[in-house]
Parts: sequence; C-alpha cells; structure tokens
Amino acid sequence: MMQAKQEWAEKILSGDRRAIARAISAIEKGEPAGRELLKRVFSKTGGAFVIGVTGSPGAGKSTLVEKLAAEYRADGTRVGIIAVDPTSPFSGGAILGDRIRMQRLATDEGVYIRSMATRGQLGGLAPAAHDAVSILDAAGCGVVIIETVGVGQDEVEVARLAEATVLLLVPGMGDDVQTFKAGVMEIADLFVINKADQPGAGRIEQEITAMLAISTPRDGWQPPILRTVATTGEGIAALREKLDEFRVFGGQGVREARRREQCRSRLLDLLRQELFEKVARQRLQGSELDALVGEVLSRRRDPHTVVEELVAETAPRETEISKSRR
Amino acid sequence: MMQAKQEWAEKILSGDRRAIARAISAIEKGEPAGRELLKRVFSKTGGAFVIGVTGSPGAGKSTLVEKLAAEYRADGTRVGIIAVDPTSPFSGGAILGDRIRMQRLATDEGVYIRSMATRGQLGGLAPAAHDAVSILDAAGCGVVIIETVGVGQDEVEVARLAEATVLLLVPGMGDDVQTFKAGVMEIADLFVINKADQPGAGRIEQEITAMLAISTPRDGWQPPILRTVATTGEGIAALREKLDEFRVFGGQGVREARRREQCRSRLLDLLRQELFEKVARQRLQGSELDALVGEVLSRRRDPHTVVEELVAETAPRETEISKSRR
Repeated sequence: MMQAKQEWAEKILSGDRRAIARAISAIEKGEPAGRELLKRVFSKTGGAFVIGVTGSPGAGKSTLVEKLAAEYRADGTRVGIIAVDPTSPFSGGAILGDRIRMQRLATDEGVYIRSMATRGQLGGLAPAAHDAVSILDAAGCGVVIIETVGVGQDEVEVARLAEATVLLLVPGMGDDVQTFKAGVMEIADLFVINKADQPGAGRIEQEITAMLAISTPRDGWQPPILRTVATTGEGIAALREKLDEFRVFGGQGVREARRREQCRSRLLDLLRQELFEKVARQRLQGSELDALVGEVLSRRRDPHTVVEELVAETAPRETEISKSRR
Repeated sequence: MMQAKQEWAEKILSGDRRAIARAISAIEKGEPAGRELLKRVFSKTGGAFVIGVTGSPGAGKSTLVEKLAAEYRADGTRVGIIAVDPTSPFSGGAILGDRIRMQRLATDEGVYIRSMATRGQLGGLAPAAHDAVSILDAAGCGVVIIETVGVGQDEVEVARLAEATVLLLVPGMGDDVQTFKAGVMEIADLFVINKADQPGAGRIEQEITAMLAISTPRDGWQPPILRTVATTGEGIAALREKLDEFRVFGGQGVREARRREQCRSRLLDLLRQELFEKVARQRLQGSELDALVGEVLSRRRDPHTVVEELVAETAPRETEISKSRR
C-alpha cells in the first residue's frame, strides 16, 4: 500500500499523465489518497508559474488559454491547464467536459488539461484547486494556467491561487466596466481586451484607463492593458511577454509577498475544511443533523447555541488521529 | 450587563430602529453581543417572508426592491431590506452606503434598510446575513428583501437564505441567458424582465422560456416570467401577487422542505465558521501562523501535515466553554 503510493508519487514526478489524472481525481473527491500523494510530492513544487485567466462568460477565455498554452509550448515548456467550470449547486454536474475543450491541444503530450467543478460549495474550490496546481507543478509543468467561468467569488479565489491574474474584457461591454464587481477589477495584474478587432475596443480601453487612474497600483505594479484577437492568435506573444515581465518584476519581492499571502490562505482554507469535516464525521452522522435542524425550526433552540455545543463536544481522540496519520 | 442585553433584545422585538441597527452592526463585526441578542430573540422569528432579489449589475435591482417594498408598505407591512454589497477583497470597504440607496424609502419608519458587505471571505456572508434576517424578522418585519449585487456565488448563497428568489434580467443581454451561470438560473423562483419597455424584451422572454422548457421545475413550481419597468412601477403589483402566490404554493409542503434545507445550511455554515474561529483564536495567535507559512513555503512541511496537526492539537477546554456560555 505504502509502496504503491510511493510508485504513484514517482510517476507523478516523472510526468505520467494517467498518474496525474488519477491524483487530481482523488483530490477532487476528497479521497485520502489525494492528500497522501500531495504530501509525497510537495517538496518538489514551487517551480511553476501559475497564471489565472478570468473574465465574463463569452469573453473568449478558453481560446485565449489555448493560444497562450501553445505560446509556452513553443519553448518546450510543459503546461498544465485547470478549467474551473460552473456547476449547478443543485444538479452537481460540470457543464463543460475536458474532452470538448481545447481540442487542438488535446493531442500534445506536453499539455495537461483538466476541468474541475466549483460545486457551489463554500470553501470547496480553493483547497482542491490548490492541491491540483501542486500536482501539476510537481509533475514538471513550468506554467499552470487556471481558467474560470463566471464572474464573482470564483475569480477572487482564483486570484488567491495564481501568481499573475489576467482579466479578459471584450468590446461592447459598455457600462460593465463600472458595474463590474470592484473586487474583480482589483485582482487583475494584466487587462486583456480580447476580440479587439470588434468595434468598441478603444472605448473599453479608455474606461479601464480611467478606472486605473483613480486606483492605487497593487504591489507597485501598474497593470498594462493589452489587445488580443485570440481566435487568430493576434497579441498572444505580447501577452506572454508581459506575463514574463510581470514574473521578473514579481521576483523583486512582490512575488515572495504574494506567495506568502497565498500560502497563508491555503493553510486557513484547509484548516476550515478539515475541522468541519472532522466534526461532521464525528458528530453529524445519520439522523443527528436532522434532529438538530428540527429543534431549530421549531424554535426550541437557536442556531448559535446548537453550534456552540457541537464545537464544545468535539474533543479530538489522539489515538484515532495517530492512526489516520500512519 | 445581562440586563442591558435583555433590554436591548426587547427593544429589537418592539421594532426600535437604533436597537436593530446596533444589533446588525454587532453581528457584522462578529461581536459576542450579536450572537447573544440573536439567541434572545430567536424564538420570535419565523414570521417574515424572505425574498431574495438578484441579477446582473445594472438590471435595476435597487429600484425594483424600492418599489416592491412600497407595494408591501401600502398594507402597513413592515419591510426590512438587506442590500448585499460587493466588497473589494483587498480594501474591505463597501461601495454603496445605506444613505445613498433607496432615498425615497429612507424617511419611512416602517422600512428598515441595511447594507452588508460580502467581504470576499469564504463563509463570510451567509452566517451574518442569516442572523441579520433573523433580527429583522424578530423586529416584526413581515417581509425581508435581500438584494445582491453581482452574479455568482453570492446569488447562490442568497437563495439559501430566501424563501423566494427573484432573478432580474434585462433586454439586450443577448446570449447572456445561455452563458449565465447554470446555478444562478436554477435558483430563480420568479424571473423578472425589468426595463421591459426597451427593445428585446420579447427575445429574452423566449430565451428564458426555451431554457425552462428543458429544465425540471424545482419543487414542482413552474417559475413565471414577469415584465416590469421598475422606474415607473409598472408590473410591480403583479410581481407582488406572484410572490404571494408562490408563498401560498410554498405552504403546501415545499416551504417546509425549503426551510429545513436552509436551516441545515445555516447550521453547517455556522459550524464551519465557529470551529475555525475557535482554532484560529487558540492556536494561531501572533506569529505562529507566519511560522507555519514559512515552513510550507520553504517546503520543509506540506500544508496537509500542518493542518492535520493543528486539527489534532485542538482539544476544547471544558471550563472555557462553560464560561463563555454563562
């Protein structure tokens, strides 16, 4: 068992695609094997440049990610892509599968593409996506691109995983720049106006410029505004150059500070999740939660009192923990 | 101290605006007083009809909420409004203040308007917003409207608080209905095409109809599609009628099932938060977290091992807990 895990970990480090796929699946499902593998390969991580690509639905993110990946592939750099898909909180299934995405890259052995579902769960995305990035990093990907669908909290979370965040906008968004969630505009290290051959590219650039003029540069970096036509590949080489420039800039202290902040978030997200799962496992088996819900619904007890008691009753059993650590 | 809390709770129950405002502030800041008050008034909750209003930026949500509130006010129903504002995850400040919102309602003593910031924190919105709704409910609001800005996870969370969720769309969104996050379309109990006097209202109605035709009605309710012009008040009375119809419909078992599910989410969200805060308070004081971050960054330890140890070391001290319960 131990040996099988070690072999699996070694296969990941050698870039074996099946081993990587199985590891990320185990992480996504929350299986103990995923955690075990992560522990084994973690010391080999830290080499990947993690790029987040975000923006409104229909902005052309997938196409841009495909072209950007090809740009890095031209050097022989291995590229990992994690596409964070919107998932219905009710049906639980991802809309877009790996297979229909980025078909041109699908035959390239140096590219690893993976969809992950956000699941509509609080705290669900970040820890799993972070672990998946670590697996790809350990597997020798020099670049890992995280692409999100949708606009909102997901983007902010992705920015907490990525070293550089690219925000895609398209002409014709009109007043959307103003109404765009403030937090989303602020996470951008690079603005990209995609579909820049369409009318309105100049107007949207003016709007971004106006917005940037009244905001303080984050970490001392003035986010550039680039224009691309992802379908033709126009502007992609320039985007890559700017990303590399940002990475070098980031090397001057900013990168270290940001990595520190990201590591901090990762630890806290994981802690939040693990504590919760532990208590849910120990105390909320079977009908126990239903009984508590019934007490609150009937106003016999209030939610805070119920939760305080649950928290108080959760004494860790040292023997169990030592066992689970093996 | 105890007596002051009891007086404060009684003032909330009598609808005292200052007492309500101070209670929600205490909840928002995570002060123990907020929790204490919630416990004291919780048994008086359950009477309010909680309506969520969500949709893209610029869809006219605030105006619609203002008009809908006025519609309920015409009966003498007390109305609470919670506007969930986008907050920069970096600056921490809400964009829109209570004062500049819904000025026409501001002088009506029977309306309580409050902005709350999402804070960009995982698990941050739901527990606090849920508690704020309970305060307004206890204070005698027959209707509580929760309005969100932005599209994404926030909306899903709001649907978890509301008994009825209204999704606002506007003509000219074009292909956006298709690309709208799947989870957001599914949370709608009522679709409202606002600015229905603008060209394209028919087209967007067709798109919603087409989408509904291929989806299974949630809880057996077929979401109606209404048209409004919130600025003139057109269609608002019909919206209220449909909401009341949904409420009656909901009374036939659906409402109970949904309240049960919401209560469950509330308990789990609160548990997640409380456990985390407890450990953060006990174990991550001062420079301890920084030291752990340093170990992970230098790859001396991996995040999972660090978190497992933190979880294992958190033994609750019975005396402290009993003390905090008083």
